[in-house]
Amino acid sequence: MVKSIQETVQVLAFDVFGTVVDWHGSIQRAVEKRFPGIDGSAFALAWRAGYVPAMARVRSGELGWTLIDDLHRMILDSLLPDFGLAHLSEADRQSLNRVWHELDPWPDSVEGIRRLKSRFTVTTLSNGNIGLLTRMAKRAGLPWDCVLSAEVFRAYKPDPATYLGVARVFDLQPSQVMLVAAHHDDLAGARACGLHSAYIERPFENGRHQLKDVSPRPENDLHASSLMALADQLGC
Amino acid sequence: MVKSIQETVQVLAFDVFGTVVDWHGSIQRAVEKRFPGIDGSAFALAWRAGYVPAMARVRSGELGWTLIDDLHRMILDSLLPDFGLAHLSEADRQSLNRVWHELDPWPDSVEGIRRLKSRFTVTTLSNGNIGLLTRMAKRAGLPWDCVLSAEVFRAYKPDPATYLGVARVFDLQPSQVMLVAAHHDDLAGARACGLHSAYIERPFENGRHQLKDVSPRPENDLHASSLMALADQLGC
Repeated sequence: MVKSIQETVQVLAFDVFGTVVDWHGSIQRAVEKRFPGIDGSAFALAWRAGYVPAMARVRSGELGWTLIDDLHRMILDSLLPDFGLAHLSEADRQSLNRVWHELDPWPDSVEGIRRLKSRFTVTTLSNGNIGLLTRMAKRAGLPWDCVLSAEVFRAYKPDPATYLGVARVFDLQPSQVMLVAAHHDDLAGARACGLHSAYIERPFENGRHQLKDVSPRPENDLHASSLMALADQLGC
Repeated sequence: MVKSIQETVQVLAFDVFGTVVDWHGSIQRAVEKRFPGIDGSAFALAWRAGYVPAMARVRSGELGWTLIDDLHRMILDSLLPDFGLAHLSEADRQSLNRVWHELDPWPDSVEGIRRLKSRFTVTTLSNGNIGLLTRMAKRAGLPWDCVLSAEVFRAYKPDPATYLGVARVFDLQPSQVMLVAAHHDDLAGARACGLHSAYIERPFENGRHQLKDVSPRPENDLHASSLMALADQLGC
């Protein structure tokens, strides 16, 4: 299987939130630094919990096309009162919303992507908007060849337009693209479109008190404990 | 002016064909290597001459949205007979069309962009499609932070949607973006949208036998003999 992937796949498309960067730890640290006494972990989990329902409102057509920056802001406004922060000014809300542009990578991400880039074209395929992904990459040193986003395809994962869009952008067959993600639903969406799939273990994605089950599932083509381990498997 | 630009501008958006890479010399070399005896310079000029009319057909609506890869191929098919190459196979035509993905950068481009990247976000803003721009950058080592293209905005420069699209992607005012280009019409389009403009001298863009007038025009904010010189001017 690995040999076949090495020969077939030309582009690795990476999920970003949770797979490449640690949204939970980064939001927790940013919130606790700004607001001592607030439970940053609970804040991060609440903010992220609003993400899937918000995107579902876009996918259903209830909301018109809306960037993640704006969805994050809508969710933020709705959860601030629960944390005693209803008094935050507009400027403070805008600044807080920007912490999603400043998420820290997992320790293996920068070097793992650098190694994978030696053999494959490495691109984001994230629901995050282009500006967010570019600022995050520049700050963290993530060496993408290309920044693809739901914003390019005007559709959110797991819409097939996103996975097939990567293949189309690079004029490839879907099987020549592999999605790299820490989320089985994302990988399932990619496989349904004919892409290859690589699962990355991120047991602490939701924090150290809420461990994720990261056991292998046979439907994924590859399973790796980190992006460095994925580079090992792919001979990079 | 330079001080004001340093303080205001956050994103440099680069025209690519002619500004960052030498399409004429690259196409000439590729054609003469494949087809000894053919005038590679004339071939390059003829291919490029079809580019503006082809995009005009898209802009007018005569053609639906069409990527540059496909426009290049249409132009190629139409000019092959003029060069005695009407017999080329489909595979050879596809391969030849890919030389636009393999254009060589001008000698100052990689290091100039690397220096500018230390202070600004550097992105393409090209009519080339994303796959073309990504392959070109990977081969040439062009260290973009982001690959923006007409393909993202589904509009070709000088459509305002492209220039304003860069500002919107990065959630900036138009004046916080500067277009870097070797073409006055492109820079005029950007200025009309409120962007800053930097002209780069590329006297040999059309080959060594057809020198371009690269004298300064007062309407551009900056004028530089190369991307290294632009980095000097901007203190990078």
